[in-house]
Amino acid sequence: MNRVKTWLLSVFVLLSIATLVVAQERNEIAFPDIEGYSTLKCDLHTHTVFSDGNVWPTVRVDEAYRVGLDVLALSDHIEYQPHKADVPTNHNRPFEVALGRARELGIILIRGAEITRDTPPGHFNVIFLKDINPLVKDDLVEAIAAGCEQGGFVFWNHHAWKGEELGRWLDIHSTLYEKKLLHGMEVANGDDYYPTAHRWCLEKGLTMVGNSDIHGPDLLQKNTSAEHRTMTLVFVTEKSEQGVLEALRAGRTAVWCGPLMIGKPEWLTALAEASLEIDPPHMRSKTSVWVKVRNKCAMDLVLKRTGQFGPAEVTLKANTTAIFRINVPDASQPIPLEYEITNFLAAPGEGLDVSYTIPAP
Amino acid sequence: MNRVKTWLLSVFVLLSIATLVVAQERNEIAFPDIEGYSTLKCDLHTHTVFSDGNVWPTVRVDEAYRVGLDVLALSDHIEYQPHKADVPTNHNRPFEVALGRARELGIILIRGAEITRDTPPGHFNVIFLKDINPLVKDDLVEAIAAGCEQGGFVFWNHHAWKGEELGRWLDIHSTLYEKKLLHGMEVANGDDYYPTAHRWCLEKGLTMVGNSDIHGPDLLQKNTSAEHRTMTLVFVTEKSEQGVLEALRAGRTAVWCGPLMIGKPEWLTALAEASLEIDPPHMRSKTSVWVKVRNKCAMDLVLKRTGQFGPAEVTLKANTTAIFRINVPDASQPIPLEYEITNFLAAPGEGLDVSYTIPAP
Amino acid sequence: MNRVKTWLLSVFVLLSIATLVVAQERNEIAFPDIEGYSTLKCDLHTHTVFSDGNVWPTVRVDEAYRVGLDVLALSDHIEYQPHKADVPTNHNRPFEVALGRARELGIILIRGAEITRDTPPGHFNVIFLKDINPLVKDDLVEAIAAGCEQGGFVFWNHHAWKGEELGRWLDIHSTLYEKKLLHGMEVANGDDYYPTAHRWCLEKGLTMVGNSDIHGPDLLQKNTSAEHRTMTLVFVTEKSEQGVLEALRAGRTAVWCGPLMIGKPEWLTALAEASLEIDPPHMRSKTSVWVKVRNKCAMDLVLKRTGQFGPAEVTLKANTTAIFRINVPDASQPIPLEYEITNFLAAPGEGLDVSYTIPAP
Amino acid sequence: MNRVKTWLLSVFVLLSIATLVVAQERNEIAFPDIEGYSTLKCDLHTHTVFSDGNVWPTVRVDEAYRVGLDVLALSDHIEYQPHKADVPTNHNRPFEVALGRARELGIILIRGAEITRDTPPGHFNVIFLKDINPLVKDDLVEAIAAGCEQGGFVFWNHHAWKGEELGRWLDIHSTLYEKKLLHGMEVANGDDYYPTAHRWCLEKGLTMVGNSDIHGPDLLQKNTSAEHRTMTLVFVTEKSEQGVLEALRAGRTAVWCGPLMIGKPEWLTALAEASLEIDPPHMRSKTSVWVKVRNKCAMDLVLKRTGQFGPAEVTLKANTTAIFRINVPDASQPIPLEYEITNFLAAPGEGLDVSYTIPAP
Repeated sequence: MNRVKTWLLSVFVLLSIATLVVAQERNEIAFPDIEGYSTLKCDLHTHTVFSDGNVWPTVRVDEAYRVGLDVLALSDHIEYQPHKADVPTNHNRPFEVALGRARELGIILIRGAEITRDTPPGHFNVIFLKDINPLVKDDLVEAIAAGCEQGGFVFWNHHAWKGEELGRWLDIHSTLYEKKLLHGMEVANGDDYYPTAHRWCLEKGLTMVGNSDIHGPDLLQKNTSAEHRTMTLVFVTEKSEQGVLEALRAGRTAVWCGPLMIGKPEWLTALAEASLEIDPPHMRSKTSVWVKVRNKCAMDLVLKRTGQFGPAEVTLKANTTAIFRINVPDASQPIPLEYEITNFLAAPGEGLDVSYTIPAP
Repeated sequence: MNRVKTWLLSVFVLLSIATLVVAQERNEIAFPDIEGYSTLKCDLHTHTVFSDGNVWPTVRVDEAYRVGLDVLALSDHIEYQPHKADVPTNHNRPFEVALGRARELGIILIRGAEITRDTPPGHFNVIFLKDINPLVKDDLVEAIAAGCEQGGFVFWNHHAWKGEELGRWLDIHSTLYEKKLLHGMEVANGDDYYPTAHRWCLEKGLTMVGNSDIHGPDLLQKNTSAEHRTMTLVFVTEKSEQGVLEALRAGRTAVWCGPLMIGKPEWLTALAEASLEIDPPHMRSKTSVWVKVRNKCAMDLVLKRTGQFGPAEVTLKANTTAIFRINVPDASQPIPLEYEITNFLAAPGEGLDVSYTIPAP
Repeated sequence: MNRVKTWLLSVFVLLSIATLVVAQERNEIAFPDIEGYSTLKCDLHTHTVFSDGNVWPTVRVDEAYRVGLDVLALSDHIEYQPHKADVPTNHNRPFEVALGRARELGIILIRGAEITRDTPPGHFNVIFLKDINPLVKDDLVEAIAAGCEQGGFVFWNHHAWKGEELGRWLDIHSTLYEKKLLHGMEVANGDDYYPTAHRWCLEKGLTMVGNSDIHGPDLLQKNTSAEHRTMTLVFVTEKSEQGVLEALRAGRTAVWCGPLMIGKPEWLTALAEASLEIDPPHMRSKTSVWVKVRNKCAMDLVLKRTGQFGPAEVTLKANTTAIFRINVPDASQPIPLEYEITNFLAAPGEGLDVSYTIPAP
Repeated sequence: MNRVKTWLLSVFVLLSIATLVVAQERNEIAFPDIEGYSTLKCDLHTHTVFSDGNVWPTVRVDEAYRVGLDVLALSDHIEYQPHKADVPTNHNRPFEVALGRARELGIILIRGAEITRDTPPGHFNVIFLKDINPLVKDDLVEAIAAGCEQGGFVFWNHHAWKGEELGRWLDIHSTLYEKKLLHGMEVANGDDYYPTAHRWCLEKGLTMVGNSDIHGPDLLQKNTSAEHRTMTLVFVTEKSEQGVLEALRAGRTAVWCGPLMIGKPEWLTALAEASLEIDPPHMRSKTSVWVKVRNKCAMDLVLKRTGQFGPAEVTLKANTTAIFRINVPDASQPIPLEYEITNFLAAPGEGLDVSYTIPAP
């Protein structure tokens, strides 16, 4: 009886206010800040009804808030607007329509556009724009240049979406690159990872980004290891639009796509160090130690032993703790653990090497 | 194509080691430490096949680990052993059988027993025992005394499980209380909350505990706001068996049962302060401020305004952030927020008053 | 090793085609057909970007398909179009835009409009229209009449959304009713149930409908007992637009809102009979029988005993089977079971009486 | 306000009886009956505290009921009983302890034992026993023969669990096979699939079974495509212990393991036919038809086109409907669809061929 009454009391309150709260529920994405930088979760390529997307611009902001994004770029197509008969062309409107909601929810909203030409040469996002109209130009280089004059950041989208052959690096890409009109590439777009883009970014010093390119509604309530948007982690010194731009120009990013984290080795290393926490052994025998390992980040980490000690392979699930027994000849000595995080891709096909030494007792 | 290959790479690794990891996956329960103390999650009343439970003692340890408990007491019935024909009486065995596994998993395992007499006077758990056999005595007071001589901590279980009438405070309870043979009460057991026990604990200075009294397997993978074990939060200065005992003797507990947190006002206040984080306003107008409120704990917090400003009612969902617009006559002044957390029960039927002042800009 | 290889084989295939299938996945809603009629699941009140909704019309069709709806009416506001500056008024467009997708997915799409005046007299949906433009009239009665001339079906939406006082039955409602310009009422809209509307429908022979009135994206993957759209079950003789209209005119509906099914007793009875399946006892003793009861419908059924035998109260969870032991003086006699389904509301505050007799062995 | 009251009414009832119902909730597994036979879901290899399992025998019955199994064999080890010090050897007790609960819940409970010798020759389950004690013999062949004398059904468990080398077919297996003391093999055990066993079963006419070999508690609430017990589908003419035995002796089985259904072609074909339902086209053009395909079974079906028409690859998710557009030169002709179900394994590495012709309009 008490049980029912008590529950009822609370249920009453819960129900009567449920509607007020739903819109404001935000599920943070557990990627820790790294040494010296804050980690922002960013989607820099999204669409609305103003081009070929299917949602009103404010929906993108609400989604971003709900699923824990910090930064959102709206980047409707300039040249492709299948809803034009019902939603007349107005390149700056998506941003303007969404801005108030973004301020209210504390989302950093970025004005962007997708320059949409044949493939090749492909599609390019220009973001951090002040006015999209000047980018309406026949010549691709001129259009991009018009974005850069405003301080825009340019990346080549999903280069191989029609296959590697149509995603080749052509003279026009060299031109853009040499004129400093190309600053980054999508190494991932939606569910697709592009190893070639990954390699080019490493070779040419381009910034790696990864985005959803979302057109329909985002049905997720939260981003989890099992199901999440492709996104760019940007490591900033300041949580602001300016801070994001500075970090992108400096190449401080990592890209979360499916089970993978893709990036430059230095940022992957920093992220791994911030994500893994190993306690001192809570139990010891002569030839074994038992240690707790906490994975504080939102993705499962898949480890493979490269050294002598520890389990040969192990998956540390997102936001969980695991306990391992490490067998050694002499547990009174320091124990070096050497592993590769196989799903932290430091280069195409290459995991990230990490190590840790368990101190002597 | 790349997409498939990449995924496959990871899937391969994931699958090949999945079995090794499952047993070691632990889902922490997000109740923060409070000012000056660590917060341990404890279940002090559980059963195994050695009395009328249905699982082997090690299963209780594995469950505790998986669902994020720090402390587990096995407390099989002394007088009631329906499996006796197959599992001969051996009061100390459940603890002995489970101890190795507990050490390995870093669970603080407590040897306990449930003294199981008619109701009234009811059932009593004695925990932190060294040997259960001396408690096998006809006289209830003598049995409990035998536990206390070993340093045992005694609490009256589910006093009203057969109704308030059979759960009355009788002379024998006064005797135990006066002889210092009764130190606490279950204010909650399984899904039942006992307001009368809550009141007695406040009046008599008894320690409040709440436990699962689990008999079958625990099917949960994690404890969530929606579904969780009833448990006792114990606020310790030291994460050890001794630390738990000291905190229980000092009454530093709170009990999580269904949507409720039950406890003494001082510990509820400390827990609320540690759980709520309010950022400085991220947006301001002349008559409004927008603030982010983070609920860092594992339960939904149901708030009701008692002061002048802020939404009348709101539920802060577990582990989420919410944004509120606070309307005031003059947003350039400090803004006092006064609320009752209606599901933090400081006394039967009484929520907990909390307040916070948004500083002037 | 075999294990990994085998899994991989399948995973490979699964991944490579995943994108093709997602859009086509439909989760049926388990409400059985009733004696003599097919049961269609209908949402007759929804919005798009063409009024104050936030999604493109095709999104409503995709949602309907995914979550198992059979019938969808788009009913954008005629008088309220906050996106007008960007999406110029064009009342018939939402239907036209969505129709191709609806045909492809086998959804019965209905052209509707919400006539949106002050409250009182409130908002009215007119559905099964051929052209919405003739409804653009200053006079409410004339606007509705223009819809009826086209064969439209008219219902009063969420009559008490601004409170019972502003939702009173006024002369204008009598006028509409007497002129046969009002055919039904929403007894539920979103999460709100309107007992007064329920009563009026019973008294005046109006058709009961219940709808989502959805504006944002539907985030559900499926409609479940725990979380679902408010919808109207329509009992048709023919699965077609004409069939739905005929059934609505005949009042053959029931409304699923939260944990409730609301309707006229005859249709609730037919639905209950189709939903419950009781097997002959699989075990018998002299004074007990054990029976399996299957709840074949998508909602939990909450039963309360009104007769002599069977458990006093029981919840039959959606799509599950339960086993009960029925104790009687003499199990060799037929056993009458008499219950009220308390969450089948045959009238405000009244559950539905049902009975079943277990035959003698 | 009405909303709250209405919900409360139901919530009240729901809560007050929740505890009565939980134990009786059963989630059926959606595999349809096949032409001429009923489909029973069976786990023929499980353990309890009476050998090296960790649960009381009744827990196995409760689990079976909850997750939708129809048939359960308890098969504790004869030679391996690590809990012997606390649970003295009594081979027949697990069955006896669990039988009452099984009858009450309508589960067909089978008395079994696992003869547990070195590998090779490996472990053998003997089920449908009347008394396990006669199987306690030093000689393996004699022990198995003692089981067969009682009418027992014998299968070789997880033959390659220590690798293919230690799982070879030896003279002793030939002896057993020739003496008709070996009737089946596990083609799957837990998460492992054994292609060699699959091949031997096809070559030698042995019955294929697949089982959980579960030792700890089953944490699942239901068996789903994503996560389920390995189990044997047995196609019976009579839902009884005798019916199951007859079907096993006749080899009428299929084994569900991970994403795979493993079996003899004839039973896989019958299962596929019963599981797939294709509606007549609901839309047609000159060169296309649109068809709805319903997968009525509990597992995802992965199809690959082997003929001319239809999508090249598609996954039909469990219990969902999908819609396909089939492009053909002339949609006024019958359209043959030819596919391989790649995860229905008719032989190691071979999917099952299926076909269907869409009739002309």
